[in-house]
Amino acid sequence: MKAEIISVGTELLLGQIIDKDAPYLYRKLAELGIDVHYQSTLGDNPTRLVGAIEAALSRSDIVITAGGLGPTVDDITLYSMGSVTSRALVYEKKIEKYILRFFEKRKRKVEKDALRQANIPRGARWFENKLGTAPGILVEHGEKILIALPGPPRELIPLFENSIIPFLKKKRLVGNRTIKTKTIKIAGLLEVEVNKLVKDLLSMGPKTTMGIYAHLGETHLKITSKAKNEKAALREIKKAENKLRKRLSKYIYGVDDETLEFAVGKTLAAKRKTLAIAESCTGGLIADRITNISGSSDYFKMGIVAYSNEAKINLLGVSEENLKKYGAVSKQVALEMAKGVKNISGATISIGVTGIAGPKGGTSKKPVGLVFIAVITNKTYIIKEHRFKGSRREIKLQTSTAALNLLRGIL
Amino acid sequence: MKAEIISVGTELLLGQIIDKDAPYLYRKLAELGIDVHYQSTLGDNPTRLVGAIEAALSRSDIVITAGGLGPTVDDITLYSMGSVTSRALVYEKKIEKYILRFFEKRKRKVEKDALRQANIPRGARWFENKLGTAPGILVEHGEKILIALPGPPRELIPLFENSIIPFLKKKRLVGNRTIKTKTIKIAGLLEVEVNKLVKDLLSMGPKTTMGIYAHLGETHLKITSKAKNEKAALREIKKAENKLRKRLSKYIYGVDDETLEFAVGKTLAAKRKTLAIAESCTGGLIADRITNISGSSDYFKMGIVAYSNEAKINLLGVSEENLKKYGAVSKQVALEMAKGVKNISGATISIGVTGIAGPKGGTSKKPVGLVFIAVITNKTYIIKEHRFKGSRREIKLQTSTAALNLLRGIL
Repeated sequence: MKAEIISVGTELLLGQIIDKDAPYLYRKLAELGIDVHYQSTLGDNPTRLVGAIEAALSRSDIVITAGGLGPTVDDITLYSMGSVTSRALVYEKKIEKYILRFFEKRKRKVEKDALRQANIPRGARWFENKLGTAPGILVEHGEKILIALPGPPRELIPLFENSIIPFLKKKRLVGNRTIKTKTIKIAGLLEVEVNKLVKDLLSMGPKTTMGIYAHLGETHLKITSKAKNEKAALREIKKAENKLRKRLSKYIYGVDDETLEFAVGKTLAAKRKTLAIAESCTGGLIADRITNISGSSDYFKMGIVAYSNEAKINLLGVSEENLKKYGAVSKQVALEMAKGVKNISGATISIGVTGIAGPKGGTSKKPVGLVFIAVITNKTYIIKEHRFKGSRREIKLQTSTAALNLLRGIL
Repeated sequence: MKAEIISVGTELLLGQIIDKDAPYLYRKLAELGIDVHYQSTLGDNPTRLVGAIEAALSRSDIVITAGGLGPTVDDITLYSMGSVTSRALVYEKKIEKYILRFFEKRKRKVEKDALRQANIPRGARWFENKLGTAPGILVEHGEKILIALPGPPRELIPLFENSIIPFLKKKRLVGNRTIKTKTIKIAGLLEVEVNKLVKDLLSMGPKTTMGIYAHLGETHLKITSKAKNEKAALREIKKAENKLRKRLSKYIYGVDDETLEFAVGKTLAAKRKTLAIAESCTGGLIADRITNISGSSDYFKMGIVAYSNEAKINLLGVSEENLKKYGAVSKQVALEMAKGVKNISGATISIGVTGIAGPKGGTSKKPVGLVFIAVITNKTYIIKEHRFKGSRREIKLQTSTAALNLLRGIL
């Protein structure tokens, strides 16, 4: 079974509204085992919409339009739907009734234009929209199904869940298989480096696929499995995951929604370690990420954002001599910052970070993006140098990820 | 001039990644006076992509693809582009050179697969991608222009701004009317409150429109104007903006890309004030936001994230008595935190924040979302109590916005 989505609305094509309907429908249809090969976005133009619906019907079994059902003059989806299926629009009294009830419940005057939404293609099914006036419409056109849903996600989603999914299931139009995905999250390796290590696994067969996605400082591997039921899909995913873990184990920090700060926090809590952070170029971002995790107060003791040399000297006890000799952005200062905050806080592990976030402040010897990260435990320490690229924010983000990953490594 | 956008990637059609390229391109093309009538999304399938590019070329003057240019095996855009325009892919030595340089600069080993990105359609123009390895590609195919850009927005956006827009302007392919927008940013008023104050201005006429958008802790008013040239559009926007400023002046902190931290930073710099921050529940987020601004080292002295009572007492000098009597989340402690960090840092202004970010830790007297913010200057101080709703992250964000806005008020 193949479905296709058509998002309707000039405001979409002007970038004034972000399309949230299509991504929602993609995920739901995948779960139902229905493939989506195409999606298109069109403005409020009947000629173009008629053409797009015709093209979609020629390729797909189910065509879903989102938007263009409102009461204003530029809403043209039902007109186009009727035109493609050679059905006149007829006034449906029962729809009128629920539209009137909609206004009554809200103690609002009935908008005359809203009643235009009671005009639907002859013989179409319709589904009451509890959160708006435009009903969901479904036409069976030969072997094909044409569905029109209102554009606002808060109206489209309940209509799809409560009316369209039950219809598709009843008519046995859902696939006899399901799609499940799992994301394996990696820090410390670039996309190309991950690619090299797992290239042969990327095309595992038509039923299980793997995709590589680059993020700032991270690489994600997404395993997607199509199978006849959830259990079989999860089994295939597990197989693929095991292969990945064999090759990438030490770089994998988590799966799906787990963040690096979540992974680090879990280990800190399990090992009963406590953490303190001294930041310069990241300006509090590492502490912010650590404290995004509920329960972080159990292991996070203190953060110091020492932006000025003054703060580095007076608060963290960085030596003036090192600051002069090596500069604020140096291995030595990163280490002294980590030592300083460890002493003050009494934490068992600490991080010190110094660097140049830019866009100003770089020199040829110490360019923007140069960063030193130190992590100290009671027994050992490690210092790493990085040269990141990107905007100020991107350098901050990459630095914070590298720092959390260095901490993860030492744990 | 008509343009069409094709977003490429199976991960888009599975709802695993949200398409941010198309909305960006819509806005930019509208500003350039280039109409967009169609957009489509396709998976990584060469046959379908070839068909989609052909259909797009039959309808539009400019076709832009986003995505499908990476070094991995499932990247198929250039193959499809070559196929549609009957051009073989040829290996471009100069692209190889910059890809090699890309790795060299990052001190990374060159990945052989990345060099596949040097294969481009014969006779195509290409533009160096400074933030990735895939170049931007442009083919003039008869009267039509075919453009291929990499999928990640951080690569696509600079390529479009720095290479594609200048090309379109030079070739006089931009339109004879323009759409301009300006966003007026407001903190400290809810959407419904703003709506009440400006409701009569929302429908100003067909050429200038205004929309209200609610964000966490902020409300944005977006003015959109269509006119025959930029000057006329900007004049209409100015008129609308003046009307808004008359009614909302003290709540407006900036426009367009200006953030609250930017507005605060500008004032701190202009008034030669210096800032220090003591945070508890926001965990470093306020310092992070302040230091997102280039040049913040001129006025930002220090941040302390005092998550534990210990840190509040030892480092900030909060009195044990007040902690016991009023609790860590109290007006008194917020004020003492601000005082403490002001003393240590010698800053002229300081912020102290304490609260319950949740989801745990709330009580009936002190629920999740209860926050106290203190701002102190050399002359005065102010303390505000808030009760925010939402997730842990949403409470952190709303608190940071409220703190920055309180600081803005006192400045």
